[in-house]
Parts: sequence; C-alpha cells; structure tokens
Amino acid sequence: MKILFKNGSVVNVFSDSLEKRNVLIEDEKIIGVGDYTEDDADIVEDVSGKYICPGFIDGHIHIESTMMTPVEFAKAVLPHGTTGVIADPHEIANVCGIEGVQFMLEASAELPVTVYIMLPSCVPSTAFDESGATLTAEDLEPLYMAPRILGLAEMMNYPGVIAKEQEVLQKIEDAHRNGKVVDGHAPLISGKELDIYLSAGIQSDHECSSYEEGAERIRKGQWLMIRQGTAARNLNGLIELFDEPWSRKCLLVTDDRHPADILKDGHIDHIIRLAIEMGKSPFAAIRMATIQTAECFGLHRVGAVAPGFQANVLILDDLDSVSVRDVYCGGKKVVSNGKVTEITTPAIKEQRIKAVRNSFYVDRLRESDLHIEEKGTHCRVIKTIPGQLLTDEWITEINWAKNNGIDADRDILKIAVVERHMHTGHKGIGFISGIGLKKGAVASTVSHDSHNLVIIGANDEDMMCVANHVIKMGGGYAVSCDGKILADLPLPIAGLMSELGATELAEKNEKLLDTLTFLGVAKEVAPLMTMAFVSLAVIPSLKLTTKGLVDVGKQEQVSLYADL
Amino acid sequence: MKILFKNGSVVNVFSDSLEKRNVLIEDEKIIGVGDYTEDDADIVEDVSGKYICPGFIDGHIHIESTMMTPVEFAKAVLPHGTTGVIADPHEIANVCGIEGVQFMLEASAELPVTVYIMLPSCVPSTAFDESGATLTAEDLEPLYMAPRILGLAEMMNYPGVIAKEQEVLQKIEDAHRNGKVVDGHAPLISGKELDIYLSAGIQSDHECSSYEEGAERIRKGQWLMIRQGTAARNLNGLIELFDEPWSRKCLLVTDDRHPADILKDGHIDHIIRLAIEMGKSPFAAIRMATIQTAECFGLHRVGAVAPGFQANVLILDDLDSVSVRDVYCGGKKVVSNGKVTEITTPAIKEQRIKAVRNSFYVDRLRESDLHIEEKGTHCRVIKTIPGQLLTDEWITEINWAKNNGIDADRDILKIAVVERHMHTGHKGIGFISGIGLKKGAVASTVSHDSHNLVIIGANDEDMMCVANHVIKMGGGYAVSCDGKILADLPLPIAGLMSELGATELAEKNEKLLDTLTFLGVAKEVAPLMTMAFVSLAVIPSLKLTTKGLVDVGKQEQVSLYADL
Repeated sequence: MKILFKNGSVVNVFSDSLEKRNVLIEDEKIIGVGDYTEDDADIVEDVSGKYICPGFIDGHIHIESTMMTPVEFAKAVLPHGTTGVIADPHEIANVCGIEGVQFMLEASAELPVTVYIMLPSCVPSTAFDESGATLTAEDLEPLYMAPRILGLAEMMNYPGVIAKEQEVLQKIEDAHRNGKVVDGHAPLISGKELDIYLSAGIQSDHECSSYEEGAERIRKGQWLMIRQGTAARNLNGLIELFDEPWSRKCLLVTDDRHPADILKDGHIDHIIRLAIEMGKSPFAAIRMATIQTAECFGLHRVGAVAPGFQANVLILDDLDSVSVRDVYCGGKKVVSNGKVTEITTPAIKEQRIKAVRNSFYVDRLRESDLHIEEKGTHCRVIKTIPGQLLTDEWITEINWAKNNGIDADRDILKIAVVERHMHTGHKGIGFISGIGLKKGAVASTVSHDSHNLVIIGANDEDMMCVANHVIKMGGGYAVSCDGKILADLPLPIAGLMSELGATELAEKNEKLLDTLTFLGVAKEVAPLMTMAFVSLAVIPSLKLTTKGLVDVGKQEQVSLYADL
Repeated sequence: MKILFKNGSVVNVFSDSLEKRNVLIEDEKIIGVGDYTEDDADIVEDVSGKYICPGFIDGHIHIESTMMTPVEFAKAVLPHGTTGVIADPHEIANVCGIEGVQFMLEASAELPVTVYIMLPSCVPSTAFDESGATLTAEDLEPLYMAPRILGLAEMMNYPGVIAKEQEVLQKIEDAHRNGKVVDGHAPLISGKELDIYLSAGIQSDHECSSYEEGAERIRKGQWLMIRQGTAARNLNGLIELFDEPWSRKCLLVTDDRHPADILKDGHIDHIIRLAIEMGKSPFAAIRMATIQTAECFGLHRVGAVAPGFQANVLILDDLDSVSVRDVYCGGKKVVSNGKVTEITTPAIKEQRIKAVRNSFYVDRLRESDLHIEEKGTHCRVIKTIPGQLLTDEWITEINWAKNNGIDADRDILKIAVVERHMHTGHKGIGFISGIGLKKGAVASTVSHDSHNLVIIGANDEDMMCVANHVIKMGGGYAVSCDGKILADLPLPIAGLMSELGATELAEKNEKLLDTLTFLGVAKEVAPLMTMAFVSLAVIPSLKLTTKGLVDVGKQEQVSLYADL
C-alpha cells in the first residue's frame, strides 16, 4: 500500500534544511521524495503547513526505569514521536539474569517502537552488590547472534577497564569480535585515565555534565550522549555542544524517564524542544535524535526521510515546539492526531513470564528482624541531601532507649536493605536522616542496581508491615502507617515493572508521594529516588547494602557504630 | 612497543582543528593523545613543526586498473599516505570469476595498506559482453563471511534495479541480510528514477559530476564519493560539496589511477591538495578521506588520531601541501622520510596463481582471421573523439581493393575484438577512425569490462603479429610494425596486472605511447584508453564487441555494412 504526504515540508537531516517536497511511502519503506501526486498513491494525506520529520531514537534508556513493560512504554512515548530506542535491560538483568534480557527481547518484539538491545556489561554492578544474577562474558557472548542486539551496554566498571581486568576486557573483545559496539559510562575521568578507558574501544558516554568534559570525549573520538532524563539532567551543562562541529558527534538520550514526566513533558521531543528554546538549531537537535543515533549504532536506512529508509515518519504541527500530530512506524499509522492506535502486545514464552514474575526468594519479615543491637553510643547515619544522589556521613549519639534508636523528632529513621534474590537472609540495617517521615514506613524494590528490598520507617511494626506487603505483591512500592497500607504500586515483573499504563502508574506514584508528604516528608525531598540510590555503593559517601554500611570513598564496609 | 610523537600538531577530524598534543601508540593502537612524555615510550619521535594526521582511505578503487598487484600498489600509494582502500575487484572477476576475487583477497592479506573488498555486483557488465565468468547472487553470497568483505560493489545495473529484476535485487538483499552495504553507480539519473534506485538501499555513488547531481544524492541519503582518478575527474564539478553541510556526507575516491599519475601527482593526498588549493578547508577534505570513509563502510576505530583507534598515522611536513614524510600502519613505520620500507609479499595459494595466470583460452591468430568480407560499399566506422570515451558512428565508402578496406590516409584503420576466455572463436571486426596510426598495429587485453583481446592496426600482418605476441605474453599491451614488436608491457595476471612496480610500469607505458606517437598517433589521442573502452557497450554511440558492432543508444547489434 502506498501513502502520499503532500504539501508538507520535509525535515532533511542531510542538508539541514526544510524541503517543500511530497513524500511517498510503500509498505514499510519510504520510496520517494519529490513531485509525487495523488496518482502515485492509494492513500493521500494532505499535510499542508506541517512538517515531515524522521522518528526520534533514544540512544540510551533503561525501559525498566519507566516501570512500564515495553508495550506500555511504546504507547507512552509514541505520541512524542519516539520510534526507536537503544535499551539496556540492566535493571531486570540484575534481578533475573539472562532470563531478564530474554524477557525484554520477547516483550519488545515487533513493537512499532523498535527496541534495540545492548547487553548489560556490569551485573552485578559492584562487589558490594548481592544481585539476582551474575553475567559473565561467557553468558553474554551467545546473545550477540540474536536480532536487535547492537552491542555491550554502558561499561560502568571503568576502574576494571583501566586496571585491564581480564573478564572486563573479554566482554569488550567479544562485542568487537562480533562486529558490535560498546557504550561507555565513565563520569569525570579525563586525560590519561580517559585515554586508557577509550583505548579499550568504548564508543560513547552519557555521563558528561560540562562542555569541557563533553568536548574532550568528542575530540577523543567518542559519541557524546546528551542526557536529559528524570534523575540526571545534563542539557544545560552541555548545551554548547549543539554548535558545530560538536553537534555532529552528539546524540540525545534519557537514560531513565518516569511515567509522570513522559506524560507531562515528553521524551526525546522534550529535549529537542528545550534545545530549540535555548536558541539551538532544530536541525542539529533533530539530527542528534535521528540519523546520528542510527550512525552511532550502525543502523542502516533508519533515521531520515529519504528513499530506501524505513518509513518511521512524524507529522509535526509545528517545528519549534516539536508538536507531534501523527506517527508512522514502518509505514503504519500508529498515532493519529496525538492518539495511539491499537498496539498488539507481543507474545512471551510462559517460561520467561514465570522467571520474571517470581523474583522473590525471601521470607516474610518478623519485627525482630529489624531490631538493631545496642553496641555503642554513637552511630554512622546516612544523611541524604534533597535533590541529590550524594549522601553524607553523619555521626551522632543514638538514644537507644527510645524506639530502638529511631528518633523522628531529630529526623533519625531506620533503614533496612533486605536481600531478596537468593534467600540468604542477608540484611543491612542502619539509620538515615533527611527524609522527614514523622510516622509510618515506606518500602521499595527499585533500588539500583541489585534491586533488593529497601525499607525506611519511623517504627519497626510499620516497616515489617510495609515490607511484607511488598513481598506479597511480588515487588513494588508501598507506604504504611499504624499497621495499615495507605498506598501502593505493585511492580510484579522482577519487582521493577508493572503491566499498567503510564497514566495509572503516574497516578499511583503521585498517591505514594502524597501519602509520604502527609506522613511528614517535605516537598523538596524525593524519597523514592533516595531509596533507589541509597544502596548504590558507587555514589559517595555513605550507603547501605545487604551487607551493611559502605564508605564509598574508601570502597569498604564500615561499622554502624562509630566508636567501634 | 610504545612510540611517542612529541611536539607535533594533531589533525583532529572530530573537532576540525589542530591540537598541540603528544600522541602515544602501543603496538597497533593509538593509546593516548595528551601530555605524554619520553618516560611513557620506548621510542620517541620529535615531530616539531609537523602534523600528525590519520591515514587516508580511498573509498572506491579498482586496483587492477593500476596494473599493479596489491603489494606493488601498496608500495606505490603508501608514500602518499594511503593506509586503506575499499577495492572492487571487478576487472579480475570478469576474467577469472570468484577465483579472481579470492586471488585479490589473498594477494592483499596483511598488507600495511588495509585492502577492504566489495564484491563485484555486475559480472558480466552487459548482455553484449563475453566475459570469463558470470557471478550470480548464489556465487557471491558465501563470500560475505570472509574477512575484509564490506559489501556489494558499485551496482552499475541501474536499469536492472529500476526494473526490479529478481537476480539484481537478490544480490542487494543478500548484502543487506549479511549486515553489509551496497555501493552505487548511476550517473545522471535523478528524480523518480533515482528514488526507485535508492529505495533498493544503495548507499553511495561515485559517478556524479555536478553540484546539483551530487546535492540531490546527499539530500536523498547517499554518501557522495567525489572521484578524481586518471580517467574520470569530477573534483572541479563537485568542489562546492566541500562546504557544509554537504562535506559531512562526502568521501574522496579515485576509481582508477594509473602508475604514472600516482608517481607524478599522488593518490588521495592529491585530491586533498587540489581541494585545499581551490580554497577548501583541509579539515573537511581530510575528514572526507578518513573518518567519514570509515563511517560510510562501518569500520570501527579507524580514520582518526584518537585513543583506541588503529595506529594508521601520517607525519606531514606541511598541512596545505599534504606532504607526507612518515607513515605508520598499525603502529609499524612503513614509510620513512618518503621512502617505503621492506614490505612482505603475501603468500598466495598455488591454485589461485595458476587460475589468474592462465586466463587465455584462444588460438593463435592467422592473418586470414582478420579478413573482412566485402559485402557492401559503405560501412559503419567507429569514430573516436580525442579525450573522450564517447564515440560517433561514421558511415563512409570503403575502398575494398586497397588493403582489405584499411586506408590510413583517410584515417580508417581495422579493429578486432577477439574472445579470449572460452575458446569460442568469436570475434568482431570493423573499422575505426580517429587513432591516426599510419603503420603498424597495437593490441591490448585491458578492455572494459570483459577484457577481451583488442587489436587496432594499419595492416593485417602487424595485427596478427602483435595479437600473437600478447597471447604469448599471457596478456598485456604491445605495438608492432613491419612484423617486429617495438614495445610491450606484459600483464600476465589475468591480462590485467603485472608484478612490476609503478616506476617500471610507468616507463613501459610511456614507451608504448612514444612508439605509437612515432607510428603516427597524435599527442592528444589516448590510444590505450580508447582501446580500454571501445568494447564497453554502455557508453554511446558505436562500439565493437566479440559479437560485432553495437549501437549503444538502441542497445542492439548492427551490421558493419551500412547498406545491408
């Protein structure tokens, strides 16, 4: 079937210009850009005054962080013009291993949004992590044969690369030998350390936050991914890279994106819009989200409105505001006047569904499991900073007599991280400050990168109550108070994803946050974000894992008791 | 082993700028660009005042047209900074089929110049050709597994693509399915015809000669190869494409290049030099010969001076004149102060050598074989035009009584094209004008694309003599007069290549031309070039094949006798 778009302006990513030309597509392919007429087509779309633009590609995202399955994710981002993503299923891999990667492959098969997959390079992330799986080079290698696998995902273990650890280099070499690419993740390293890292053949980075940092990466041959997601927002710091010659080596990515943000602001379209508002060329911004992403990942005939290219085409009402009206994926209209049409949910093998829906191997908690032994007068308290992933260490005297050390008046709450994958019974328990909860408790299984069960509370009963509720749901978030569950958000797929759509997820998420506000958490605190990063022992200073407190700077475990 | 280049200026193809930085290489790889010192290296090269530039890559060349084997070709182009070529072994494939491709693969293995191969797409070139082999999609497909095979070479059969011929589309589909690219060759087509051609997924073209033609290709998503070789020279017509945004999608190529031109003017360095002389940015020109060529062909970590990239590095005395002093390939110094060091000739299987050295299946000619029967008063004569590949048809009265129709005074010579691959005994005989030979004869086996034996002469005895000499040599060029061979250039490998170096080939070639001048050929006539294209029935108007005269416009055979 042939469709003609007539009277529109084509956004040409090769000539950086608008072209008053008609576009003809046949089945899944663009077959002509020129003087085509009604006689050439079966269907004619008059797009007078509108723009015909290639579909956007997110160069780096963890779909799990949207809490949506790939099909629901597709429904959420298609109205924003996203027709492709390069996804790293790192989160589910930390819970379910290769089964998790296979689940994401199957769950994203033949969606209108093409989901390309990069193989998770660092599972587990650190030696402190107790994840659900370990992925070795040997585990990953056979997967390079699968379709849609483009390479090895963000190599976060830059100390391992720099130290030339055999297993790390083997993973990189396997990707290269299979003709695939290797993405990077190495914030703030530069000069000679960066050179060693790059010498391993790592093609990109998405962790840069300043012009100088970004420009060094580009000068040294990397593709620079400009990230503007929910947690990390680097557009401001990198905006100068939209100018020439830098823009030629930049891509736009989100890394992670919450449902509420997708609904409110959008996805890649949002980054393009912001860049244009900041005075940058729409052509540069669009190139960075289309043809250049395709080139970076070796995708042929994707990312442009040109003959022979995949018919992933957006009809924009306006260029500067990137207002997406219609979206065609592989020649099929999937968004009409901003509304997504019916999308088929991919069939997934029973075995995969079982594997990802049974990710809990942990006993129900008893109140006594959360008890802290009184071994000293002063303890190390994790002091969170509103709006940041960094934490400080705060050493303070603990009033053990009162509520096993919890003192909501002094903003000292209890925190527990419970191993949930291997039934080890391991748990770390400590104190945390900066959350502001006056009563009740909150629990979550979204906790980078191992996604163990994190509980923060003002008393042990509520912590027990909320933890057991989350275990019963098979993962997710919940808030309790006085022995009752006040709000929850089940994430039964690996404790990370739901089958709900963006709107319902955003509503449930908002209810969680409202409930926490009601229980005393200040507006500027992002409690779920804090819980998501409080176990990640790569961001300074003091973190809590299933094995106890970690001094991130020293990369060693430390005692809860400051005087021991 | 580590080598440090200190005090030089790095030509950075990512930032379009010069950088005062030291460069460290280890073994085959660049491992650092920055403040490295003597302490970091085993060998230190002080390159004060010089430029450190990535090695040049020719995006499209037929090595056979240099008449050199790959190793001699490498020795000739290395002093000009060429460290990689994308070669289409189309000529030898027309003579020897897959054996010819295999020969080129083996003969180019592990040379300092990396020889990447594109599989010949059109063997034979036309239905009129009697070539030594036919390459089907089925023949080509298994070769995609071989190393250094990047795709399908110039798809010249654009009528076949446009008509969607099954076999043609199959070849393209096979390349794509194997993750490879397909180069184009489609001069002068534009608009809707071009759209159909491009819709097959053809990524490049090297046949454009004007800005408008080139810009249309780029706008429609092709890589534009700007060709400046020995026969076709398009730089002048395309010079505006060195400006932005066009330059980002252009490459530099030679297509064919004769030894004398390589010695006198250079290779890719020559094109860069010319562009700079014409006022264009050296950075744009160098990008078009390095990183962009790598990107076009999906070559990772090649084409830049950056950490992790192959250490294919040039030391230039001067940037604007692109004067190459030293050349490093994979970290090994192969050109020192303009002189090539020892290069090992690749080992080639005995079977391959036999196949390409025994490419003649033709009997020795007798004088009577060249006799033309007198069947009419007027004949069609091929009228050549000095400096052009086009010919005209000239109908004139033939004086049969005198020398079987040859009349050197009226510049009417005899021409024969003798099938030499299959022992068919097929031969086309006719008349040719515009060469100017007063006596003697000349023969050649370099005749696109089938490379049959072409003889032009002022009498049958000399034609027989020179033809039999060429047959005895196993191919090449020769000139005879009065029954004696006055000059020759043996090309025993497929009748196309010699094992001689560029200097000797250039000398022998010059002697051939001088001898022809002595026999009456005017300076402005390029007789060997004329012979090379006189059988190619795709360039108008009148051509001679082994089956007789062809009217190219009508694409049909025509009689020698104009009145029949």
